[in-house]
Amino acid sequence: MAQQRGVKVAEVNPTDSGKLRAFVRDVLTAMNVPRQDAETVSEILVEADLRGVDSHGVTRLGGYVQMIRSGIINPRPKIQVVKETPSTAVIDGDKAFGMPVAKRAMEMTLDKAKQVGLAGVTARNMSHTGMVGFYTMMAASRGMVGMAMNNGPTIVPPFGGITPNLSTNPMSVAFPAGKEEPIVLDMATTVVAGGKFRLAAKKGLPIPKEWALDRSGVPTDDPNEAIEHGFFQWAGGYKGFGLATMVEVLGGVLSGGLFGQEVPPMIHFGKDPITSSGFYLAIDIERFMPLAEFQGRVDTLVRQLLSSKLAKGVERIYVAGGPEFERKRQRTREGIPLSAPVYEELLRLSRELELPFDLAFSGPRAGGSRH
Amino acid sequence: MAQQRGVKVAEVNPTDSGKLRAFVRDVLTAMNVPRQDAETVSEILVEADLRGVDSHGVTRLGGYVQMIRSGIINPRPKIQVVKETPSTAVIDGDKAFGMPVAKRAMEMTLDKAKQVGLAGVTARNMSHTGMVGFYTMMAASRGMVGMAMNNGPTIVPPFGGITPNLSTNPMSVAFPAGKEEPIVLDMATTVVAGGKFRLAAKKGLPIPKEWALDRSGVPTDDPNEAIEHGFFQWAGGYKGFGLATMVEVLGGVLSGGLFGQEVPPMIHFGKDPITSSGFYLAIDIERFMPLAEFQGRVDTLVRQLLSSKLAKGVERIYVAGGPEFERKRQRTREGIPLSAPVYEELLRLSRELELPFDLAFSGPRAGGSRH
Repeated sequence: MAQQRGVKVAEVNPTDSGKLRAFVRDVLTAMNVPRQDAETVSEILVEADLRGVDSHGVTRLGGYVQMIRSGIINPRPKIQVVKETPSTAVIDGDKAFGMPVAKRAMEMTLDKAKQVGLAGVTARNMSHTGMVGFYTMMAASRGMVGMAMNNGPTIVPPFGGITPNLSTNPMSVAFPAGKEEPIVLDMATTVVAGGKFRLAAKKGLPIPKEWALDRSGVPTDDPNEAIEHGFFQWAGGYKGFGLATMVEVLGGVLSGGLFGQEVPPMIHFGKDPITSSGFYLAIDIERFMPLAEFQGRVDTLVRQLLSSKLAKGVERIYVAGGPEFERKRQRTREGIPLSAPVYEELLRLSRELELPFDLAFSGPRAGGSRH
Repeated sequence: MAQQRGVKVAEVNPTDSGKLRAFVRDVLTAMNVPRQDAETVSEILVEADLRGVDSHGVTRLGGYVQMIRSGIINPRPKIQVVKETPSTAVIDGDKAFGMPVAKRAMEMTLDKAKQVGLAGVTARNMSHTGMVGFYTMMAASRGMVGMAMNNGPTIVPPFGGITPNLSTNPMSVAFPAGKEEPIVLDMATTVVAGGKFRLAAKKGLPIPKEWALDRSGVPTDDPNEAIEHGFFQWAGGYKGFGLATMVEVLGGVLSGGLFGQEVPPMIHFGKDPITSSGFYLAIDIERFMPLAEFQGRVDTLVRQLLSSKLAKGVERIYVAGGPEFERKRQRTREGIPLSAPVYEELLRLSRELELPFDLAFSGPRAGGSRH
């Protein structure tokens, strides 16, 4: 592997998104994943890295490879539509990667909504689906309203409790705009995701008391207690818990998949199973008003929000999805700054699988940078 | 008015829900509201009082009467379906009470969803819609999933801003259960509603710093500053703001109604206009699985959540809607405890409109107490 001899690992490694996508795809095809599924997974991982959602980017690849090796992820699944009507479908993922299943579910949802106005598709028995906003942005880019959500490993207790019963249950909604960026809400129903605890623990810093509970269910600022024995807190307290309940019912219950305490917990990403079920909904805007009119109205709303007078100490206002579009423009210009541990893991995978390794960023790529 | 001579106003006045409904209806019909619309408004107000959502109960009646008198609410509207397909509709409320418009919108949504699987209806140009959970419970009681949300007076700035641009934008989702109560999430996207500030100010107490911002956008514990010059805070910070943006787009933008800064603000309830637009969605569960199976699965989830070990200091866990069902059982047994100011206002209305006034609670009513 001549390409690998000269690889230098820096603190931050500006990486070319196109090369990264090809590399991730090649890792997955080397792991017996069909080319089209490998393309889908790599597309969604690298899109997360471009958008600054690093927790859902290529940092996950090593874990996925481990999960294929241990049989947790089925690389050659038989994904089936087990029930279908003109406006609905139920998909069984056969332990597949979540991304190809969720993407197919949203494609079906969009096709159906275009035909009948509104459509909803559930998908069950799949693994990690990555950045949930990817699926709703598919809707926005086709001029439709998209909604997506999924349950996952049982790690978060109900509000007021300490027995884990739900996941961080993310949800996303996206709306097409005209001249402005689409509005893309993409949020966990907990305050933060686990990565932030681990970063604070590594740096020896306390965490805000709103993030986590200790083992007895009391707010804690100790990241180690939170990681080892504690629990996530819900965003907005009982309101986040209520939204997570909605996600559990629409994703887990309505899909016929695992829900609540049936879903295995996950302590170690890559070693433990991830089982997820999702719900995907689309609305054809044209049934309500011409798309151009809707887009113009969304533009007006976005501009109003962005031009609010600022609160003391605030530098600018963002509409949902705004920070991620900004980050994508920056990373398209400057490359994706992969941290040393992530870069080293990719390098290790390239050696194990005997793949060429050249991810170096050499300048902005043409096109595709805005959305 | 012989009935009124003996009226005693206590601190708390146990009130009969049936008599209260009839009284509210009679006040409204005396104000030129058609009987069916008056029934709908009174049904939804008293249901809010039964469920303990006092802020959306008969405390509003005096303001509504004022709004009819000043022409803000149109008591004899021509509510029109301006656009319709098998799965969608757009309704114009002609400045009507919001409740008959929203109820009709949800009825259309449910009928359509039963026919085609999923349906969505928008309603614009209506006044206050009351407790938004009422509309989603209509869906749950018909064995369907319901979602409802609406925008309203421009009083809340975007996260990070101090220029009002949205309302407290409430949303609700409901799911039918089997033996358990339905799950009914019904929440403002702000932390609390304005009534809590006013109560703290009256008692001379500080408010939690998470509730409100002062005039410069900094968290404050002074309820007077919050009421006079300040702003609501979003539940979960930018996450609540993101959800409110979703409500503004689905309610205000998609309906063709007023949205963002176009919606008049409201400082004094009763004196200032309330303009609202809403979005109503329903899903026919039977397209995904037999209803009984879904209900059984929801029961299982609810029981799991309720049986979690408790966090330190917590007495019990509630699933969304749980506290309200409990309150309704209690108030059905014991009467609705109307506070002296509310009771006095109803008494005043009875005198102005020359209506008999007897709301006294005399024991539990048969039936209808569970949901």
